[in-house]
Amino acid sequence: MKAKVYVTIKQNVLDPQGNAVQGALHSLGFNEVGKVRIGKYLELDLDTNDRAQAEEKLKVMCEKLLANTVVEDYRFELEG
Amino acid sequence: MKAKVYVTIKQNVLDPQGNAVQGALHSLGFNEVGKVRIGKYLELDLDTNDRAQAEEKLKVMCEKLLANTVVEDYRFELEG
Repeated sequence: MKAKVYVTIKQNVLDPQGNAVQGALHSLGFNEVGKVRIGKYLELDLDTNDRAQAEEKLKVMCEKLLANTVVEDYRFELEG
Repeated sequence: MKAKVYVTIKQNVLDPQGNAVQGALHSLGFNEVGKVRIGKYLELDLDTNDRAQAEEKLKVMCEKLLANTVVEDYRFELEG
């Protein structure tokens, strides 16, 4: 089973990396670019076929390690 | 219009960050976790309603700045 995890910075938290990329895109002439937010995208192979258990475990992995839930949100999708 | 960009490390390129996360997850007892690959996930607001033009521009942004196409792949989705 394959999991895709998206970790994003919460809406009300500043994203200096996103602001830097926005500035760089403007410098390159892409003036139509507004707000840019940068997060992480993780692909995990899971050696299990129990979807419910995989969801439960992924939730714990995100809370414990993959996301800093003080300033980040996460969501995940399971495939296969 | 909103764009979601996914930048991932190419399959045949080593991902030390992913290996470190895999090791950390194993240390936490998640032994069912196999390969972990870590990429970037970007959300961009685009001030345009021309979908074809937006796709064209996003492609250039990815090639020029957002992805290092030597070692990374990218894909994007447009919404709205």
